[in-house]
Amino acid sequence: MNKIRIGIVGYGNLGKGVKAALKQNSDLELAAIFTRRAAQSIEIADEPIEIVNIDKAVDYTGNIDVMILCGGSATDLPEQGPYLAKMFNTVDSFDTHAKIPEYFKAVNEAALKGGKVAAISIGWDPGLFSMNRMLAEAVLPDGKEYTFWGPGVSQGHSDAIRRIPGVKGGIQYTIPVDKAIQTIRNGDVPELTTREKHIRDCYVAAEEGADKAEIERQIKSMPNYFADYDTKVTFLTTEELKEKHSHMPHGGFVVRSGVTGENQKTRQIIEFSLKLGSNPQFTASVLIAYARAVYRLNQEGQAGAKTVFDIPLGYLSGKSPEDLRRELL
Amino acid sequence: MNKIRIGIVGYGNLGKGVKAALKQNSDLELAAIFTRRAAQSIEIADEPIEIVNIDKAVDYTGNIDVMILCGGSATDLPEQGPYLAKMFNTVDSFDTHAKIPEYFKAVNEAALKGGKVAAISIGWDPGLFSMNRMLAEAVLPDGKEYTFWGPGVSQGHSDAIRRIPGVKGGIQYTIPVDKAIQTIRNGDVPELTTREKHIRDCYVAAEEGADKAEIERQIKSMPNYFADYDTKVTFLTTEELKEKHSHMPHGGFVVRSGVTGENQKTRQIIEFSLKLGSNPQFTASVLIAYARAVYRLNQEGQAGAKTVFDIPLGYLSGKSPEDLRRELL
Repeated sequence: MNKIRIGIVGYGNLGKGVKAALKQNSDLELAAIFTRRAAQSIEIADEPIEIVNIDKAVDYTGNIDVMILCGGSATDLPEQGPYLAKMFNTVDSFDTHAKIPEYFKAVNEAALKGGKVAAISIGWDPGLFSMNRMLAEAVLPDGKEYTFWGPGVSQGHSDAIRRIPGVKGGIQYTIPVDKAIQTIRNGDVPELTTREKHIRDCYVAAEEGADKAEIERQIKSMPNYFADYDTKVTFLTTEELKEKHSHMPHGGFVVRSGVTGENQKTRQIIEFSLKLGSNPQFTASVLIAYARAVYRLNQEGQAGAKTVFDIPLGYLSGKSPEDLRRELL
Repeated sequence: MNKIRIGIVGYGNLGKGVKAALKQNSDLELAAIFTRRAAQSIEIADEPIEIVNIDKAVDYTGNIDVMILCGGSATDLPEQGPYLAKMFNTVDSFDTHAKIPEYFKAVNEAALKGGKVAAISIGWDPGLFSMNRMLAEAVLPDGKEYTFWGPGVSQGHSDAIRRIPGVKGGIQYTIPVDKAIQTIRNGDVPELTTREKHIRDCYVAAEEGADKAEIERQIKSMPNYFADYDTKVTFLTTEELKEKHSHMPHGGFVVRSGVTGENQKTRQIIEFSLKLGSNPQFTASVLIAYARAVYRLNQEGQAGAKTVFDIPLGYLSGKSPEDLRRELL
């Protein structure tokens, strides 16, 4: 059987995660990495991988079955998504929530024009979390849903810290409040404020002679980012920051607490949770399962943009429908 | 918009759960209840519901959009499933795992012949648990999966207790071993024996003068059912048994612990869990979401047997694809 030939577009943390995860899926293979940078600038030790400038993607339409788009949602994907979906089956992790309808429309038109399938907003949130929010709501229409994120790094909050004068480096972990989760698991359906759901835990390396008290004050009082939360600030050296805080763990919970029965008094709780050693590696693993799915959907003649709500789960697996029923049902 | 007209086949705990859950879904309505018993024998207070003998189902082909089959897997479904799938869209909770391939084949042939859609083995296990086992395996191919059930009543084990001489009544709860779950959540991937995964907790009402020590010995040494487990036996009165143990809670966990990254050393954990106040009411709620799905699939021209692996999740929701993307992605 021929392997599904994958192109990686963008070689940051997510692209690297895709390259690694492809080795765990024997029915897929890496065909080439596409980048906006000069192709020579990417070095991959001991592996003969073709590195191509993204402008040359058009020359590869016959050689790539699915492009996995690993760029960012702010500027890369709004341009690359519709452009590449005209020529290739694609999978991306577009996550600017408010712009999803607009992005879906642009990618859908392009994919329909090219006769390709494009899975958008794939990953864990949006992605697996969305799936579980939707599923739980469909099963328990009378209920309340809670999403908690973390413990994990928030890039946006880390950036906000680093913009404060006197800060050399910094990172912020979003931490779900355990008490809130326990309350929900025990069958209560509290109305939770922002502060009651997540703690913000900051690690900051200050410049020499900087006023640490003032930095801490500025962080804790920053509107939108920190002011509405219980925020912890810990100062450390640049070396400590690098050594202890360069991993990218993440995770979270989606919990729905609902009621059933003639009197709607029976409590039913559905929970989905992730505990991730590496956020980009896990997102990459989800993208790959969906690469398999879009390829198979396209082989069956489908075209257009799809989300996690549109694709039957069986398409994500390399196993046959018979094997899935026998082994996993 | 016309409501989706639902027929309930079989009016035990599950059928009652479906009747209740239909009231929580405004796009569906109960059309009739079908039973093998004499129709008059079912009394439903204050509700004008048509009760029909199952033999008359054939007269209702134009009046029912989806039949929800609430009979048992041992004898009801193998007969009713293929028979009704010829005439109606159906949803059932067939759960005799070893016979699923054979049952799928029989129902698929019938549904294809009738041009209907039949969702089989729907519920939480098989059903939502199967879905999560499959999804987690597709995302984390290098990993290990664990399923724990409970705390909840096992009908088979309760029946086994009640067959022991001197036992008037009894019930058995399967309880997952918390230590095992915590170990897995912490990132270990233990090989667990039967005994390390579940405890069996029995509540027994003995006949007057019965030898309780002998009953306890017979329970604890019963092969397959109890001998391989840590089993607890508590004696109580028939009244206590009825009062304290007539609810039907259940639940469980599906956890997959996998690795990613170039060296496959990054630990990633996916967990899905249920905490159910009522097993049959929750199963009924899942059946109803799938009733919506099979109706819509059939409206689109599809036919044949389907499982949770085959049906896109969006079909379970009453919301439009646009609303799902905007609200839940």
